[in-house]
Parts: sequence; structure tokens; C-alpha cells
Amino acid sequence: MTLMRDEIREQPQALERALKEGLPLIRNIARRINAFQPDLVFIAARGTSDNAATYARYLFEAFTGLPVSLAAPSLFTLYHRPPNLKKALVIGVSQSGGGEDIVAVIKEGRKQGAMTLALTNNPESALAQAAADVIPLNVGPELSVAATKTYTGELGLLALLAAELSDDNGLRLGLERLPSSIDKALQLEDGLKHLANQELYKNARHCLTLGRGYNFPTALEVALKLKETSYIFAAPYSTADFLHGPFALAEQSLPAILIGANGPAIPGLLDLAKKLTAEGVELLCIGDDDGLLKMATSRESAFRLDLSGISEALSPIVSVVPGQLFAMHLALARGFNPDKPRGLQKVTSTK
Amino acid sequence: MTLMRDEIREQPQALERALKEGLPLIRNIARRINAFQPDLVFIAARGTSDNAATYARYLFEAFTGLPVSLAAPSLFTLYHRPPNLKKALVIGVSQSGGGEDIVAVIKEGRKQGAMTLALTNNPESALAQAAADVIPLNVGPELSVAATKTYTGELGLLALLAAELSDDNGLRLGLERLPSSIDKALQLEDGLKHLANQELYKNARHCLTLGRGYNFPTALEVALKLKETSYIFAAPYSTADFLHGPFALAEQSLPAILIGANGPAIPGLLDLAKKLTAEGVELLCIGDDDGLLKMATSRESAFRLDLSGISEALSPIVSVVPGQLFAMHLALARGFNPDKPRGLQKVTSTK
Repeated sequence: MTLMRDEIREQPQALERALKEGLPLIRNIARRINAFQPDLVFIAARGTSDNAATYARYLFEAFTGLPVSLAAPSLFTLYHRPPNLKKALVIGVSQSGGGEDIVAVIKEGRKQGAMTLALTNNPESALAQAAADVIPLNVGPELSVAATKTYTGELGLLALLAAELSDDNGLRLGLERLPSSIDKALQLEDGLKHLANQELYKNARHCLTLGRGYNFPTALEVALKLKETSYIFAAPYSTADFLHGPFALAEQSLPAILIGANGPAIPGLLDLAKKLTAEGVELLCIGDDDGLLKMATSRESAFRLDLSGISEALSPIVSVVPGQLFAMHLALARGFNPDKPRGLQKVTSTK
Repeated sequence: MTLMRDEIREQPQALERALKEGLPLIRNIARRINAFQPDLVFIAARGTSDNAATYARYLFEAFTGLPVSLAAPSLFTLYHRPPNLKKALVIGVSQSGGGEDIVAVIKEGRKQGAMTLALTNNPESALAQAAADVIPLNVGPELSVAATKTYTGELGLLALLAAELSDDNGLRLGLERLPSSIDKALQLEDGLKHLANQELYKNARHCLTLGRGYNFPTALEVALKLKETSYIFAAPYSTADFLHGPFALAEQSLPAILIGANGPAIPGLLDLAKKLTAEGVELLCIGDDDGLLKMATSRESAFRLDLSGISEALSPIVSVVPGQLFAMHLALARGFNPDKPRGLQKVTSTK
């Protein structure tokens, strides 16, 4: 039907391969990172990869204790006033590996003596050449402009790196369960397609996407997919940030996508779901928590994930999948080609 | 007319007082920070204050060389897995000082041995009590729900701290020029009010706000004001990030607010302005660069700032002002009360 759909559906196999092929390399790199004893993880990325970097931010701080900073590349490329990265682990994340600004951050880090690492689907790219170490995504070529399997691949390999750095067996075991959990999430497609063809969603010009903690990056990534493929002004927020001003956007018949997995973020999601329902907002809920799924406006707008054996920390690698499918079907319902969004190319390089 | 307007118009005097009263205290704190030799600045904030934190991110990295990380409070409050902050300067920024999550970050930092600092308009607040050092904003009570003078106050005092930490006389001299520059920006009000009453803006349900580098936080803050007061889905982006996907949103008659000051961010803004114009996007430009102002769709939508003696690094303290006025007049034009946005209270505490 579309390349985007093919690539969404390849994710269980692509991720399984990426994790398997990445393991020995990542184990080796993790050992050297621990020997280097960085005092900071500094990650540079754009677009979908930046959402993966935001995920890594939560994961690395929680599992390694290292503070994480997400780079502002303009300080490197425009102002030539980069921060001190001598004792940092500097990671560049890019599907294409072609972004000039991401390469500049890696080069500066390396010049200063940082440990540098590229995570890219193109091991021949400028980014791969600039970094001392390279983790190839190994998810196969991605042809659709809207990135999907490279996103889950990036998340999976960053989680594998966190597991190896922290020697966390819970993460390791959870990673093994991901492909079959994604496979089950793919089976939600018919329901998502049905919903995308309802007038409320088909005609929406704006919406909210909401998550907290580990699934805040999922809200960011689902919003980006909706923007890229369906030209919807999707406003992504952590449920906490949303209460500091943007809540004023809540109104009758506004669609909101709430994403969460069993864990400490759920109570805040439920509270917000109640407040939004009181304003007449239409809730589409994605997750494995009964309470959250019950908050969906109708049974048709509740999408249950099977996250057995997968902790909340790894749930974003599954919970994004219904959002990818929904964005794709919404584009088709609106008469757009999700493989070729207007105004975009597959490789974008900014300075 | 409105409290928000009064508070916007108070900004020259409020900032002047804040800087004057803050100087001896901030000089003393800066000396102790330099003696402490932090290896990281870690800033926690929400809403408008989080946009001030994003500004501080650019300023501190550029002027002190210290890497900056913007906190993910859920790691403290929900997951109880905070990062290592032993050698960090931990700053909490909050108008009210009442946010439970921001207090939790400060407390954890202090427990770990970090240097802790609260920047708040309420020196009796929980945040002020939690931190070892407090910088009071001293901008007077802010009564409008939409924060304005506390934002420019936060920016000014964070810039003063950067100036003292880096002993940078350019910043110090520029800070003295800010009140008169803001005063001149306030004179743009009639033109902004006129534009806000035009059908294109009055009826807009969504728009873009765009800036790069130092003025990326300005794009964030103007978007937040538009959301809070006028319920517009304003999508804020750095001009670089905008090209990585969100450019697909560009279409005929979409309003976009471009903000920039003379400096290395301008060429990228101009390139993007051309691309947006080719798609039929309506450009409202704010800044002091002739080229940028010429890109405005009409002469009526070009708003010239007087930034003489003020470097790009300090320009956000002025360039936000037309955005504040525009958001307020847009709310009035649409029949909303900007002082009392629907669903919001002045003090928001999240966990």
C-alpha cells in the first residue's frame, strides 16, 4: 500500500536483527565507556532522531546516573562557542548520518577529547566517519520520508547501550520481548484505520499528544508523524508541562492522544484525562493500563498494548507503533501520500 | 485595559530594578559558583520559566563553557532515579516558587552536595526555602495569569549571572541598555494591535513561531503566550529543527512569526523565510535585521527593534515584547480575557 506501512510492519524483524547484530559491538563500546568514566552524556540529533535522543535522556539518567544534555547545535555551527566536553560521552544520532550540524558536534567533542559515538543507518556517512565509534542501525534501507523503523531501531540500540552500561538484566530481558510485543501492536491496525476514517479525526486540523516520563518522547514522535504525513498541528506535551499554560487549548471535540504504560506516570495521565474529558476533549488512549484505556472516549478509541515482560522504561519502543499506523492511515484518509510529504526530502542537512 | 498589558508595559522599570537590586547578590553568588567549580549546570523549570531556562542554556554554554542540562523532573518525583548532581550547579526557576517538582529537583541536588540556587518572584516560597541561595526576581507582584514581566526578569537575572560568571563586559554593558530598548519595543503596540485585528490573524487557529539559537526560546515563549491567551495552536521551532519534518505544515495563508537579531542566525532565518514565502505562508517579522524585516509579507507585518548596544545574546529580553503585545491584542480581538485564560490558574504545581 505504502512504503511507510511496509516499514512500520518490518519493525519486529528489523529490531530483532538490530539488537542481535548490535550486541557484541555495543557490549564492547559500553565497556570502554565505563573505563572512560564520562561525567556527562551529550547527545546531538534532529527530528525523529532527536525524539530518540529525548528517550535516551530518560533512560541514561535513570539507569546509569549520568546527567544527559541534549545539544544545541547552533552553539557549535553558528556561534562557535561550544561547551566543555572533555569528559563527556558525545553521541550523534541520525538516520542518514548526513546532518552537517550533528557532524560538527561530534567533531568538536572529539577535538576536545570526548568519547564520540555515532548511531546511524548509514555506516559510510559523514557522521560515522567523524565519530571514533559507530553503531550501525542495521534496520535496512528506509525509503519512506517519515521515519519509523529507524526510530524504533534507534530506541532499541540506545536501550541496549543503557542495559550494557548499567549491567541491568531487567532491561536485557525486556529487550528480547520487544519484537513479539510490536508484532501484537501491529494487529491494532484495523481499529486505527477505522478511527482515522471517522470525521472527527479525518477533518482535524489540530490535536494534542500527551505522555509523561519515558513516554513523553512517544508523544513527541507521534506528533511529528502527524505533522509530517497529515499536516496536523499536533501539540506534544508532557502531562506536567501541559498544565503550565497549554491546558488553555483544551476544548470541545479537540482530539487528544494519550500514551502511557503501567508505572508511576499513570496517575498523572488519569488526572489529566479526567480534566480533558470535562472540557469535552476526545481521548484516544494507547497503553496497557486498564484505568487509562477506560478513559478513552469510546471503546473504539482505546488501543491495548501487550507489554508483558516489558518495563515502562522500554515501553516507548512499542507504544509508538499505533501512533505510526494512525498517522499513516490519517494521511491516506485525508488523501495525502505519507511516503512523500509536501516540502520534505528523505535526507535533510542543516547547519 | 488588562493586567497583562500593565505588566508588559512595566517591564523596562521592573527589569531595571531587578538588575540593580540583583547585582551585589548575584556577584557574590557568582564568586562562590566559580569557587565551587561545577562541571555542569542543571536547570529545572516549567512553562514560561522553562523557556527562560532554555535561554539560560544557550547563554551559560556560550559564556561559561559549562554544559547545561534541562531537568526531566519525573526522574526525581515519579521514578526516583535522579542523575548524579554532586558537582552540578542546580538552578530552579519559578515565578511562584510553588512547583512541587521543581522543589524536588533542588532538594535532591542539595542532598547530593550540589550548589543550589532558586530564581523566583516569591522569596518566601517552598523553592526559595529549599535552595541554599535565592535570587529574588524583584519585579513586583504579577497578577495576570500569562507571565510577562517575570519572564523578562528571569532572562535578565540569568544573563546577569552569566555576565558575572564569565566576567564579560559586553554582556554587562548590554544589560544596561535593555530597559530603553524594551521601552522602544513597547511603542510597536499600535501596529501589533492593528495586525491582530486583521481577519487573517483574528481567525487563525494555528500558526508557526520560528527563531534560532538565542531567539529559539523567544519562539517558544511567544507560542506559549499565543496558546494561553488566544487558544491558537502555535508550533514553535528552531529554524533548523523546522526543516526536519515540520516544514510539511507550511501552506497558503498560514501565519508565521519569525524572530531574530543581527548575528549568525540571520542567514538561516532568511533562507527559511524564502521557502515559507514560496508556499504562501504569511510572515510577521520581529527584529533589527533589514533583510529579515524585508521578508515580512507586508510593511505592516515588519516590527523593527532598536537593539543598539545590545548583542544577539541579550536580544531575547527585548524581542519577546512584541510577541507578548501581539498575543494580548489577539486575545482581545478574539473576545477573550488574556488575564484569565480558560482552565488556568496563576500558580500551577505539578509533581
